[in-house]
Amino acid sequence: MQLAERLTRLGSETAFAVSAEAAAHAAKGNTIYPFHLGDMNIPTPGNVVEATIKAMKDGKTGYCPNYGIAPLREALAEDINRSHGTHYRTANVAIQPGGKPVISKFILAMMNAGDEVLYPSPGYPIYESQIEFHGGKAIPYRYLEGNGKFGLAIDEIARSITPRTKLLILNDPQNPTGGECSQQELQRLARIVREQDLFVLCDEAYFDVRYEGRSISLASLEDMEQRCLILYAFSKKFAMTGWRLGAAVGPAELIDVIAKLSVNDESCTNHFIQYGAIEGLTGDPAGPAEVVRILKQRRDKAVELLGEVPGLRCLKPSATFYLYPNVTQLMQRKGMTDYETFRKAVLHATGVSFCTRCHFGRTLPGEKDLYIRLAYSGIDLDMIEEGLASLKAYAES
Amino acid sequence: MQLAERLTRLGSETAFAVSAEAAAHAAKGNTIYPFHLGDMNIPTPGNVVEATIKAMKDGKTGYCPNYGIAPLREALAEDINRSHGTHYRTANVAIQPGGKPVISKFILAMMNAGDEVLYPSPGYPIYESQIEFHGGKAIPYRYLEGNGKFGLAIDEIARSITPRTKLLILNDPQNPTGGECSQQELQRLARIVREQDLFVLCDEAYFDVRYEGRSISLASLEDMEQRCLILYAFSKKFAMTGWRLGAAVGPAELIDVIAKLSVNDESCTNHFIQYGAIEGLTGDPAGPAEVVRILKQRRDKAVELLGEVPGLRCLKPSATFYLYPNVTQLMQRKGMTDYETFRKAVLHATGVSFCTRCHFGRTLPGEKDLYIRLAYSGIDLDMIEEGLASLKAYAES
Repeated sequence: MQLAERLTRLGSETAFAVSAEAAAHAAKGNTIYPFHLGDMNIPTPGNVVEATIKAMKDGKTGYCPNYGIAPLREALAEDINRSHGTHYRTANVAIQPGGKPVISKFILAMMNAGDEVLYPSPGYPIYESQIEFHGGKAIPYRYLEGNGKFGLAIDEIARSITPRTKLLILNDPQNPTGGECSQQELQRLARIVREQDLFVLCDEAYFDVRYEGRSISLASLEDMEQRCLILYAFSKKFAMTGWRLGAAVGPAELIDVIAKLSVNDESCTNHFIQYGAIEGLTGDPAGPAEVVRILKQRRDKAVELLGEVPGLRCLKPSATFYLYPNVTQLMQRKGMTDYETFRKAVLHATGVSFCTRCHFGRTLPGEKDLYIRLAYSGIDLDMIEEGLASLKAYAES
Repeated sequence: MQLAERLTRLGSETAFAVSAEAAAHAAKGNTIYPFHLGDMNIPTPGNVVEATIKAMKDGKTGYCPNYGIAPLREALAEDINRSHGTHYRTANVAIQPGGKPVISKFILAMMNAGDEVLYPSPGYPIYESQIEFHGGKAIPYRYLEGNGKFGLAIDEIARSITPRTKLLILNDPQNPTGGECSQQELQRLARIVREQDLFVLCDEAYFDVRYEGRSISLASLEDMEQRCLILYAFSKKFAMTGWRLGAAVGPAELIDVIAKLSVNDESCTNHFIQYGAIEGLTGDPAGPAEVVRILKQRRDKAVELLGEVPGLRCLKPSATFYLYPNVTQLMQRKGMTDYETFRKAVLHATGVSFCTRCHFGRTLPGEKDLYIRLAYSGIDLDMIEEGLASLKAYAES
């Protein structure tokens, strides 16, 4: 068997190896504190489940349109317009089997081989993988920690643009940092996008997972609606990660291409779960509110306890379910410089399992500070307390 | 907005235009006899629905492994081994959101730009589209009607092979013809595959939709298990088209690549429906038997009535839910040479809606006979009777 050459450029999510290692450690009888998961251990709201069951029993089991069912597309356009101040209609929405498929379809629809694509590092590793797999050149930009936040390295973005730069990927709110762009940053970015004639993938998977303030979308800024494709995910807001439901939202011309890619790739998204999603968007909002309430409790507790760990500095993000503590001092004190050595040492000493900066793309020249990522979406409050007490003891030892 | 150049090579399923036209005709108050649909109007077996609901309520709503859940992979490997006489294990199965995603992943995993890929025409139009979209050269082969069957044009396949030929796509049982390969044909094909060192995608979406005899898989022949990737679909056997559930089954090395493509493209397939599929494979077989019973009744009735239509010749396939009548004489008598003219004339005169040969890939040099495709998966018995009586009257007029 001779595999295709392009596979040498295919990346992965190395975080899965962390899950496997944690599982192996647990299998030996050890307690694991699973902070490595981006998955959720919170039930999907009951009204979403019931609406899905009703649709399944009503026979919504045949194919649906490649674009998704019209009432869901309409409900989602309206929901996004309310939170974004945008002007989307049904024609601007293509339902997808998850948020992730929007990344590959965006790349296939917009990028030619040899094009340069700006993307965040640290960031979701699939950006880099999909860009390079389909023959593009992945140009990373970074976040800068300072003034109590993670700022977008906009000067670096501006400097990195060449005549071959065509696309930019923005993840806001951000995985893994938990940070988000300020309105000022978004305005500067929008100016660059206009001046350089770029098109942007706005990965807004965490847009509605928010504890204070409100999310602002690049797509809502002047002239940006026609220059942005929004990656929308039902996964987080409605605790539906394993359902695989998301959408691409953007200019109708691009949505038509994405639906044509769906014809080629998967025909359509599961039919009956789309009725559950309509209920989620238009029904009782108590369900998603409860998801956010649970997550906020966990964030507050985790940030509080991390504050007591010597050598570790952790900001308190207002969105996402990630924490991205700076562990430069802690690693120094432990005499470690390598992320994987540190991660494994902590796992074996405490059972606390997490990803590090190295699971989120190539480290960049000049990166000095060292970071780990803790996800609190898949771990209960009592386990957060136990695990972080254990981490504190390790740091103090 | 500047779209990617590769989109000029992206095909589609032109059959969707037929659906749209039928819907428009119906909206004017006309009765439509929907023979154009590859969709099903038969309910998914109740035990599959109930097992899915149980899994959803049991909280199988988070991510599952990229490969799919292990018990489903194991159950499917065993099921295929029973019907194929193969030796697959869990490691040989990657669950997918439908059978269709196996086509694009096969092409991405195995084909380099410039490679030649043999595929059937008439055939599922996505083969041609995916080959060309990803930079390959699509080389069609045909079926030959004769001796009461559609035979594989094996001599043509053998003649078409060049040093650039690397892959072959086999759809058996066949869409649109309803035909299937004989054991002798498969043995000749296997010899060519071995001698020319080819790798084969076996699209077996209709393998279990069978009324007489038994299906034989190329993968079950000597040395073929390591040279075939099976496209498996739950869609047809279990009337689950809109659920989007299928699998890739083949050599573990290739399955690993396909799972890595899943990491990049969609993370995983919907979690809870995989429990429904386990029940389908291992539970009460009355459900899928009922699906086949209903389809057989429809086939028998449709073939009987088509036999009364002057100028039309229809074989009686033992598998699939398609009929592929030869309408050369009928079109001649109506003074028509163009497929679309004929299709629209019949639609407007009778309400009978179908696809024609032209919806299944480019017509090939030397093709003389003219064919239409009738699907009976989405139309009830009484409508089959009414519609084909109307077609008969049209043919006689």
